[in-house]
Amino acid sequence: MAGNTIGKLFKLTTYGESHGKAIGGIIDGCPSGLTLDFDAIQDELNRRKPGQSKIVTQRKEPDSVEFYSGIFEGVTTGTPIGFVIHNTNQKSKDYSHIKDVYRPSHADYTYEKKYGVRDYRGGGRSSARETASRVVAGAIAKQMLASIEINAFTSSVGDIFIDKPYQDLDFSKTESNIIRCPDEATAEKMIAKVEEIKKQGDTIGGTITCVIKNVPVGLGEPVFDKLHAELGKAMLSINAVKGFEYGSGFCGAKMKGSEHNDLFNKDGTTKTNLSGGIQGGISNGMDIYFRVAFKPVATVIQKQDALNSAGEIVEMQGKGRHDPCVVPRAVPIVEAMAALVIADYMLLRRQETNK
Amino acid sequence: MAGNTIGKLFKLTTYGESHGKAIGGIIDGCPSGLTLDFDAIQDELNRRKPGQSKIVTQRKEPDSVEFYSGIFEGVTTGTPIGFVIHNTNQKSKDYSHIKDVYRPSHADYTYEKKYGVRDYRGGGRSSARETASRVVAGAIAKQMLASIEINAFTSSVGDIFIDKPYQDLDFSKTESNIIRCPDEATAEKMIAKVEEIKKQGDTIGGTITCVIKNVPVGLGEPVFDKLHAELGKAMLSINAVKGFEYGSGFCGAKMKGSEHNDLFNKDGTTKTNLSGGIQGGISNGMDIYFRVAFKPVATVIQKQDALNSAGEIVEMQGKGRHDPCVVPRAVPIVEAMAALVIADYMLLRRQETNK
Amino acid sequence: MAGNTIGKLFKLTTYGESHGKAIGGIIDGCPSGLTLDFDAIQDELNRRKPGQSKIVTQRKEPDSVEFYSGIFEGVTTGTPIGFVIHNTNQKSKDYSHIKDVYRPSHADYTYEKKYGVRDYRGGGRSSARETASRVVAGAIAKQMLASIEINAFTSSVGDIFIDKPYQDLDFSKTESNIIRCPDEATAEKMIAKVEEIKKQGDTIGGTITCVIKNVPVGLGEPVFDKLHAELGKAMLSINAVKGFEYGSGFCGAKMKGSEHNDLFNKDGTTKTNLSGGIQGGISNGMDIYFRVAFKPVATVIQKQDALNSAGEIVEMQGKGRHDPCVVPRAVPIVEAMAALVIADYMLLRRQETNK
Amino acid sequence: MAGNTIGKLFKLTTYGESHGKAIGGIIDGCPSGLTLDFDAIQDELNRRKPGQSKIVTQRKEPDSVEFYSGIFEGVTTGTPIGFVIHNTNQKSKDYSHIKDVYRPSHADYTYEKKYGVRDYRGGGRSSARETASRVVAGAIAKQMLASIEINAFTSSVGDIFIDKPYQDLDFSKTESNIIRCPDEATAEKMIAKVEEIKKQGDTIGGTITCVIKNVPVGLGEPVFDKLHAELGKAMLSINAVKGFEYGSGFCGAKMKGSEHNDLFNKDGTTKTNLSGGIQGGISNGMDIYFRVAFKPVATVIQKQDALNSAGEIVEMQGKGRHDPCVVPRAVPIVEAMAALVIADYMLLRRQETNK
Repeated sequence: MAGNTIGKLFKLTTYGESHGKAIGGIIDGCPSGLTLDFDAIQDELNRRKPGQSKIVTQRKEPDSVEFYSGIFEGVTTGTPIGFVIHNTNQKSKDYSHIKDVYRPSHADYTYEKKYGVRDYRGGGRSSARETASRVVAGAIAKQMLASIEINAFTSSVGDIFIDKPYQDLDFSKTESNIIRCPDEATAEKMIAKVEEIKKQGDTIGGTITCVIKNVPVGLGEPVFDKLHAELGKAMLSINAVKGFEYGSGFCGAKMKGSEHNDLFNKDGTTKTNLSGGIQGGISNGMDIYFRVAFKPVATVIQKQDALNSAGEIVEMQGKGRHDPCVVPRAVPIVEAMAALVIADYMLLRRQETNK
Repeated sequence: MAGNTIGKLFKLTTYGESHGKAIGGIIDGCPSGLTLDFDAIQDELNRRKPGQSKIVTQRKEPDSVEFYSGIFEGVTTGTPIGFVIHNTNQKSKDYSHIKDVYRPSHADYTYEKKYGVRDYRGGGRSSARETASRVVAGAIAKQMLASIEINAFTSSVGDIFIDKPYQDLDFSKTESNIIRCPDEATAEKMIAKVEEIKKQGDTIGGTITCVIKNVPVGLGEPVFDKLHAELGKAMLSINAVKGFEYGSGFCGAKMKGSEHNDLFNKDGTTKTNLSGGIQGGISNGMDIYFRVAFKPVATVIQKQDALNSAGEIVEMQGKGRHDPCVVPRAVPIVEAMAALVIADYMLLRRQETNK
Repeated sequence: MAGNTIGKLFKLTTYGESHGKAIGGIIDGCPSGLTLDFDAIQDELNRRKPGQSKIVTQRKEPDSVEFYSGIFEGVTTGTPIGFVIHNTNQKSKDYSHIKDVYRPSHADYTYEKKYGVRDYRGGGRSSARETASRVVAGAIAKQMLASIEINAFTSSVGDIFIDKPYQDLDFSKTESNIIRCPDEATAEKMIAKVEEIKKQGDTIGGTITCVIKNVPVGLGEPVFDKLHAELGKAMLSINAVKGFEYGSGFCGAKMKGSEHNDLFNKDGTTKTNLSGGIQGGISNGMDIYFRVAFKPVATVIQKQDALNSAGEIVEMQGKGRHDPCVVPRAVPIVEAMAALVIADYMLLRRQETNK
Repeated sequence: MAGNTIGKLFKLTTYGESHGKAIGGIIDGCPSGLTLDFDAIQDELNRRKPGQSKIVTQRKEPDSVEFYSGIFEGVTTGTPIGFVIHNTNQKSKDYSHIKDVYRPSHADYTYEKKYGVRDYRGGGRSSARETASRVVAGAIAKQMLASIEINAFTSSVGDIFIDKPYQDLDFSKTESNIIRCPDEATAEKMIAKVEEIKKQGDTIGGTITCVIKNVPVGLGEPVFDKLHAELGKAMLSINAVKGFEYGSGFCGAKMKGSEHNDLFNKDGTTKTNLSGGIQGGISNGMDIYFRVAFKPVATVIQKQDALNSAGEIVEMQGKGRHDPCVVPRAVPIVEAMAALVIADYMLLRRQETNK
C-alpha cells in the first residue's frame, strides 16, 4: 500500500489499524521555529473523539497524543514530527464473528481481495480511527496558519439543512451544540433527527460546509494541482465522503455565464463569490468555501445480509457503539484536512517567483 | 509552477500556452510493448477540437499530434513519450485590449498576482487548450486499458437533464449527436438550449457523467490516495469544474444506512451499487460512476465590467468564437482523465502483494 | 525539513532525535503476505548497536524495536508498518556545555543556521542514531528479497585494506570478527589499528564494500533514476560517507575501453564485470558491487577548538563513549540501504512491460 | 520507465532517443520573472555538442534548442518550459547490423531484457545524446543562480592528472583548451594522450572536478536528501560515470579525525575544508567541491566480440565517429547537473523556517 502520505512540502504520513497497538504519523516539512500549543492540539482531538455526546458512538478512547520528535522545548525544529496515539481500547474482544465475513458497504471485501489478508479487527486500516492522526497534524497546520480562519460546520443531516448563506452564520456558535451546526434552530432539528435515527438502529448521512477566510492571493499550482483539486482530493480521502463541490458547485452547472461571473471591485475583490475564492486553480483572496457529502455509516444496528469468505450469504447485526451520523465528529476532520492542504500550498507558494 | 504532472507511475507532464508555439507533454511510465493505434488517438483529439459543430467555438485548430519519442515501429518502448501539438492559430492578433485587463471569473488576475507576469494571449496557460495534451495521453491510457470501458456523456445542460439511470442508456449513441448525450430526446432539448443561449451571447453550465466498466477488484491506495479521491482530483483539475460526486454522491448524504448499503450477491457482486464501484477507496468490481459539474464559460458575448491593472473598472466584451457550453467538448476530456487515473492505479496495483 | 523519505514504492520515512523520546519510522509500500522473522530484524539491529565490542562506543542502548501496525498475525498486510525504538539512554545529562557550541566537522553549525533552532542533545537529528530505523526497514526489505544475497564488509581501515578481489573472500566469515572483515589476517591488523587509534583518543576512516548477488536482469529506471545512481544516493545519505564507486569505479577512469569492456558469454553473462552488474543504469544479472568511503568520526577525545554562538573560539574535548572507527557498525547500515533500494526497484520493475 | 525526472521543485523531465525525431524536456518549477539569456543557453549546448574539436566525435549536430512555452517576452512566467532539440542527424542509415546485436558494456542487452523491445538506432534512449536536454535546463538553472559560480574542469585523463589543489587553478582558462583543463601544461599532456588513444582506435576514461562557490549556508534536506547525496545521484546519472566523491572523498577514509576536522574561524568559515562545503548534509558556506569518475567510452574502433539475440558470439567493430574520451564534452554536463541540484535546493530552502 502506497498512498499513506499527503502533501508535497508539508507532508503527513500515517500508520495504524483500529485495534492495533497504536496509530500515529510523521509530519515531515513543518517549518522550524513554530511554538506549539499542545492544549489546542488535544482540543482538536477531543472534538473528534468518541463518547463526546449522546449522538455519537459511546466507545471510550482517550485519544491522547504523544510526540516523539521534531519538537524541542516546545518549538518545532524543522525535523520530522513523529507522534503516536496508543490504542487503549484494543481489548481482547472476540472478533471471530466477523473474521470471515464481509460487511456490506464496508471495505472488508475490497481489502481482502486486494491484499489477500486483512486485519479484520474493527475494520483495521479502513476504520475512521485513522483520522485521529490527521487531526493531530491538522492542528499543527492550523497553528502554522495563525492568520487564516478555517471553519467547518454541519450544514445538513438527511434532508434537514441550513437555509441561509454562510455569511449569515456565527461560526462561534458551531461548538455550542453537539451536532456542530452554527444555526441553533436547525441544530435542534438535526439533533432530534439523529436521535430518532439512532432509536431505529439506523444511520443517516449529511453534509459539512467549510469556509476558509484570509487566504492570501496566489495559492494553487496549476494545472493538475489546482488548489480546489487538492482540497477535493483531501476531502474525498475522508471515510464515507461521496462528493465535493466548491463555490457555486453543482448549482453552478445550472447557471448562465452572465449570472455566474464575479465582477470585480477596484481593489481586486469581487462583488459576488460564486468562484468560491479560487480562479484558475489559484486563490483570489476571497473566502474559499466548499461542501462535502457524507454517506450514512454502513454499520446499522439492524439485521443485514453479509457475505462470508465461503461465498455464503449470512445474517449479521451491528453492535451498539457506532455513530448514527458521522457528521458531527467529521467537522474537525474536514478542518484538519483543509489546514493540511492550505499549509502545504503556503509553503509551495514561497518559490513561485524569482528572488 | 509545480503541478503540471499527474500520476505516480503512469505520469503525464504537460506544457504550453494557448497562443505559444506549441503545447504538448511527456508520458513517463507507459509500459513497453503496447502497439499504438494512432488513428484512435487522433479521433479523441477530434472529439475535443474546436469547430466540430455549430454549438461549439468556431475557432479552427487542426490539433494534430506529433510524437517525438518513446515509440519505435509503432510500439511503445518503455521510454518517455514526448509529443507536441503545434499551435497553428497563434496569429499576430492584437491582444493589447486585454493585456492590462483582468476578465471576471477568469484566471487573469490570479496568475498575475501569483507570478508577477503572465502570457495574456488567449488565457495563456490557464486556457482549456492545455487539455488537448491530456486527451492525447488519455487516448494512450485507454489503449493500455483495452478491456476496460470508459464512457462519459453529457448528463445535463442548465436545468435539462437525463431522467433515467445510466443503466438504461445506450452509450453507443453518445457520439450520434453534437451535445454527446446518449438519450436522444434529451439531446435535442439540450442542443436547442445551447443554441438559445448562444443567441443571447451568453453561456451555460452542465454536468458530465462517466461510467467505467470492467474495472478489476483492487484498484486504489488507501488512505489518502483512495481511487475516488484521485478520480475526484483529476476531474477537479479540468477547467471550469466546480464539483465531483461518485456513487450516491450528494444524494447519499440524505439517505439512511439501511437504504444505502449495497447487499452482496454470492459472487461478491452487489445487488445495488450506491457505492459507485468503490469501497474503502478500493474498486470492488462493480461499475464505477461519477458526475462532474461544469460552470458556465466565463467569456460571454455581452458587455461586462472588468478590472485593469491600474485598478480601474473598464467595460469589455468577449469576441465571437467561444463555447456557449463547454460540456460537449469536455466529454472526451473527462474520459481521458479517467483513463489516466485508472491506468496509473492498474500499475500501482501490480506491487500490492508479495510474489 | 523535507527529505526524510527514501524510496518510490517501498518507502521508508524516519523520525527521531538522538536524545528524544524515541526514533522510528513508517514503511509504506511493503507488499502484503510477507511472513516476518522478527528475530532476524533484531539481529540486524544488534549488529549496529553500540557496546557490541571493545572497538565501538561503549554506550548502552538495547535498541529493541516495537511494531505498531501493518503486521497481523506475523504477516504484512500491505498497510503501513509503523515502528518505534524507544530511547532508553536519554538521561537527564547536562548538555549545557555544548548548547551554544558548534563542534568542528559536525552538523551543529549548519543545522542551527538552517533551522534557527536545534536539538543539541547528542547531535539531535544529525546523529547516526537515526540509522537504527534504516536497519529495521532494511531487515524487512531483506526478507522480501529472500533470493538475493547482500553482503557488505569492511574493506579498509585507514591504509590497511584487503588486497584480494571480493571473489576470493568467504562472506560467512564477516561476522566472525569485530571489525567485520572476512579476510582474517587483514581483520586482525584492522582491529589492532583501531585499538591504537582509540588509545590516542583519535578516530580513523575506512571503506565498506558491498556485493549483491542474484539480482535479476532489469532493475533500474533510466535516465535519472539509474540503479547505481539511487544506490549511490542511498549510501551517500549515511552519516560520514564521503564517496561512492561501483564496478571499476575511480580505477575505471584510468583504463582504456579495450581493457574495460565486459565481453559476453553466450548466456548473456559477461567474462569480466568491470560494469559492476549495471549497464546503462539497469542490472545485467552479474554481481553488483560498490565501495563506500567513510571519513573518520569527528568526535575525538582530544582537545579541539570549537566555535560558540557568540562568535568565540572555545576549547572543547569529546567525552569517552564515541566510536574510534565507524566502519564496523556501518556494515549493517550499508546492507540495509542496499536492501531498501533493491526492494524498491524490484517493485518498480513490475510495471515496465504491458501485460 | 519511470525515472526521467530530476528535482523536487525545480524539476526537469526529459524525453527522446538518439535517432528519433527530437529530444527535449519540460522544466516545471522554474520561478517566474527570470529574464533569460538565450545566447548563454546555446553557448552551453555548444560546449557539449559533437564536432567541436579534433578530440571529440566528428558527428555534426547543430543542437539548437527551441522553446515552446513558459517564456513570454524573454521572461519566465512560472509555467512549464517546454523545449525541443530536433535531431537533424537521423539519416536513413542502415542499422540492421546492430539490430540484433548487444554491444559489450553498452545498454543494449539490459534495455532489451527489461523492456522486451528497444530502439536500437544509435543507442536509443541510453545514448548520451539525452544529456543535451540536461544542458539546456542546467543553463537556465545557472541563470537563476546568478550569484553562485559553478566551475567544472577535466582533472584527469587516464593516469594524467592535475597535481595541484583546485585553489591554485584559474578557472577562466578551462575553456582555453579543448580538453577543458585549466592547468595548461597538464592540458597539453591530456590532449596528446587522447590523440594517441584515438589513433589506436581505443578510448580512455578520466575524471572531472567541480567547484561551486558562493553557496549560502543551509542548502540540503537531511536525512535522505542530503545535499551531497543528491549531487552524487545527479552525477551518477550521467552516462559512463562510475564514482563520486566530495570533499576529502576516498582519501578521507584513510585519515584520522584529528587531521580531518575543519576548525572554525570566528565568522563561521573553516580553516580547512575537507568537509567539501557540506556538513551533516547541509551546505556550510565554504566551497563545495567533488570529483566524478568516467569510464572509457565502450565503443572502440577495434574488433570486439558481441552477443546477438540468437545467443551467438559475433565479431563487430565500431564506426569512426565516437568520442575517444568523453570527459571534455562532459564538463558542461557536470556543471548542468550541479546547477539543477543547487537550484532545486535553493527553492527547497525557502520553506525551512516559519515566517
